[in-house]
Amino acid sequence: MEANLDDLNPQVFGYVMDRLLEQGALDAFGVPVQMKKNRPGTLLTVLCNAADAERLTRLIFSETTTLGVRRREEQRHCLSRSWETVHTVWGDVRIKVASMNGSITNYAPEYEDCRRIAAEHQIPLKTVMQASIQQYLCGQETLHQGHGDTES
Amino acid sequence: MEANLDDLNPQVFGYVMDRLLEQGALDAFGVPVQMKKNRPGTLLTVLCNAADAERLTRLIFSETTTLGVRRREEQRHCLSRSWETVHTVWGDVRIKVASMNGSITNYAPEYEDCRRIAAEHQIPLKTVMQASIQQYLCGQETLHQGHGDTES
Amino acid sequence: MEANLDDLNPQVFGYVMDRLLEQGALDAFGVPVQMKKNRPGTLLTVLCNAADAERLTRLIFSETTTLGVRRREEQRHCLSRSWETVHTVWGDVRIKVASMNGSITNYAPEYEDCRRIAAEHQIPLKTVMQASIQQYLCGQETLHQGHGDTES
Amino acid sequence: MEANLDDLNPQVFGYVMDRLLEQGALDAFGVPVQMKKNRPGTLLTVLCNAADAERLTRLIFSETTTLGVRRREEQRHCLSRSWETVHTVWGDVRIKVASMNGSITNYAPEYEDCRRIAAEHQIPLKTVMQASIQQYLCGQETLHQGHGDTES
Amino acid sequence: MEANLDDLNPQVFGYVMDRLLEQGALDAFGVPVQMKKNRPGTLLTVLCNAADAERLTRLIFSETTTLGVRRREEQRHCLSRSWETVHTVWGDVRIKVASMNGSITNYAPEYEDCRRIAAEHQIPLKTVMQASIQQYLCGQETLHQGHGDTES
Amino acid sequence: MEANLDDLNPQVFGYVMDRLLEQGALDAFGVPVQMKKNRPGTLLTVLCNAADAERLTRLIFSETTTLGVRRREEQRHCLSRSWETVHTVWGDVRIKVASMNGSITNYAPEYEDCRRIAAEHQIPLKTVMQASIQQYLCGQETLHQGHGDTES
Repeated sequence: MEANLDDLNPQVFGYVMDRLLEQGALDAFGVPVQMKKNRPGTLLTVLCNAADAERLTRLIFSETTTLGVRRREEQRHCLSRSWETVHTVWGDVRIKVASMNGSITNYAPEYEDCRRIAAEHQIPLKTVMQASIQQYLCGQETLHQGHGDTES
Repeated sequence: MEANLDDLNPQVFGYVMDRLLEQGALDAFGVPVQMKKNRPGTLLTVLCNAADAERLTRLIFSETTTLGVRRREEQRHCLSRSWETVHTVWGDVRIKVASMNGSITNYAPEYEDCRRIAAEHQIPLKTVMQASIQQYLCGQETLHQGHGDTES
Repeated sequence: MEANLDDLNPQVFGYVMDRLLEQGALDAFGVPVQMKKNRPGTLLTVLCNAADAERLTRLIFSETTTLGVRRREEQRHCLSRSWETVHTVWGDVRIKVASMNGSITNYAPEYEDCRRIAAEHQIPLKTVMQASIQQYLCGQETLHQGHGDTES
Repeated sequence: MEANLDDLNPQVFGYVMDRLLEQGALDAFGVPVQMKKNRPGTLLTVLCNAADAERLTRLIFSETTTLGVRRREEQRHCLSRSWETVHTVWGDVRIKVASMNGSITNYAPEYEDCRRIAAEHQIPLKTVMQASIQQYLCGQETLHQGHGDTES
Repeated sequence: MEANLDDLNPQVFGYVMDRLLEQGALDAFGVPVQMKKNRPGTLLTVLCNAADAERLTRLIFSETTTLGVRRREEQRHCLSRSWETVHTVWGDVRIKVASMNGSITNYAPEYEDCRRIAAEHQIPLKTVMQASIQQYLCGQETLHQGHGDTES
Repeated sequence: MEANLDDLNPQVFGYVMDRLLEQGALDAFGVPVQMKKNRPGTLLTVLCNAADAERLTRLIFSETTTLGVRRREEQRHCLSRSWETVHTVWGDVRIKVASMNGSITNYAPEYEDCRRIAAEHQIPLKTVMQASIQQYLCGQETLHQGHGDTES
């Protein structure tokens, strides 16, 4: 669902994004757009399940100044996701592992776990994220080696 | 309808937007996009009624350098709109009132009325807009009080 | 201070902005930029007092992937600010009033006060903000009328 | 097809765009978007023929960090294209001529031909492009005059 | 001069840009920026002569919601400009010719002249602009040939 | 150095960026900006050493349509950089290591090395980059353990 906002106080936009996510939107984001009469507007885009469209449309109308909301249906291809936990020296971090046809295509540390550790231990976030990935990859190597052993 | 513009003089874009609106487009806006070969392109988006699509597509082809226009249909949920006029010390301003299921969800002063007053009276536009809203809200309070009286 | 980020995970950017503000930056923001090799980078800009420049530069180096930070001094003209509190039906809201040469040029409700009320009372944020402004303006009218009376 | 990227190193984005085009995408571009938690993300948009959608979706999953790809079908109206070659003092340049209903609506010099000449002869690209267009227009005039002669 | 706007109605921005230009700014433009708390703000940049800085700063304070304006001085290298008029079949168009060290580096048709003609004669703006450039280049060729003749 | 481009064909922008970098600019990038008359312009920013400013300014004037270039000097704080080479199963990759006051603050695989390997071996670029980082970190661990040994 999309709505063009050309007369909304940007402070309200930040709030609306939070409310939409809190109310079940799968995702919400803003695109800076150039509108008529030299207005630097924002195109609000909301991704949601069809069942929530009605309710979230009402939320967009209540919270923003838009007079119209556009809706369209799209197909969504998602990867299979699974979770693994790695143990870093500062604490545990969950890794989100995505697969396509049985092969792992992406692995990424859970942001909130890394953020929490970074803030608590006064360590750069990028360091926590990299260390978590490293733990995951080392674990993967051990796993493959383990399989290798059992095969020999 | 959308068209990617990666070789259009930006001066022409401003003109095209005006022509589209003048020729019946419901809205037209540009999105800055990063295209191949490091081209800072613009994605032109036009919203229009299905009946005007053919004619506006021809306009996009005549006025811009694009070789292709993409089209899709979307559902549009619009709020009910009504107009009220408020009297400010500098003159009248129309207020656009939007409602959803009988409840007012948004009220905004008509831009052109405010702009005209701001330019003529040398007053900041934000001041004229705020004063108009205030007049509207005061009027709403009086209305409710009035109803309250008649109920007692 | 500015730094071009062309290889930073966007998740880290959000975190860095928070850290900078928490560590005394006056403001921090990102500008989407098109960098070489078709990289959609972000230009991080930090505004701070000269005394904090050294410390915040080290923070940018620790938390981001940039190898260089640019610095320049600029003059800053700020308006005088004062606070007023208005009483809305849901609670108090502080209004930040800005003046230039003794004349009020801007008044805006404090965001956090409005957000808190909006979330607690399940009222649109735009409604809380508008009501707060209205209270402020009505208070201002009363003030002027009061002065008028004492003059007559 | 679209995918929101909020944790992808921008360096990878440039590479992915090239791979997609090399693998048959009709076009690919990025839109800077503001995502949740203050992430400066990029919305990757890929235009392709329906037959390539499956394969290109797999490419997006392998090369980027996205966990989901959205797909929708759109109608595409394209102009008829034809090629003409003009002879500039530095070499030949192909001109792409677009027509709508038999009338020429756009003519543009082929970028790669101009770029090559500009680099080899150390001439500004804008000069090569303008000279090519001029040759084309002069050729067009001669053509019309030719027709005029044969008619008289 | 720069000012970050994170709570300004975009409608007002368009108006402010016009006022600044009308009041003597050399140029004014907006940059979409990502500000704290997920606000899609706009960075207003104004270029002006030092003598106008004070006055234009006051205008920014009156018309926008910003509480601070930053100022810095920069060196400006400008090309020499001269005007030539070409005669197109629809009317005259002024060409702005820029030179560096005696050599012409850029020539561009005056936008307003082209726009007026395009609107009046219902011709695409890009066509009017291209025809004007062509007339200019043909005139330049004649000029050089003329010089050639007198030299032989 | 900065120049506002409001009438430049975006195709030329990509070319100009390459030329500037090839001619010694330290960096060059574009910022999408909203200019007067609804023009979606691009602000070209070039970073260079003072000694190259004159020459690069002339390049901007020759290759773009701008009539003015702004210049300012800024302080640049750079991290110390050193190179290390890691051996991945597909070949060697250089790692750029940045330090601040003797402590390593950032390490990143050299993009071109990774890109070459990814293209040759048909492996996702993100995979090559991650593997390179992992090799580097494992090497760092061995190094620390080594030191630990010699200390005991």
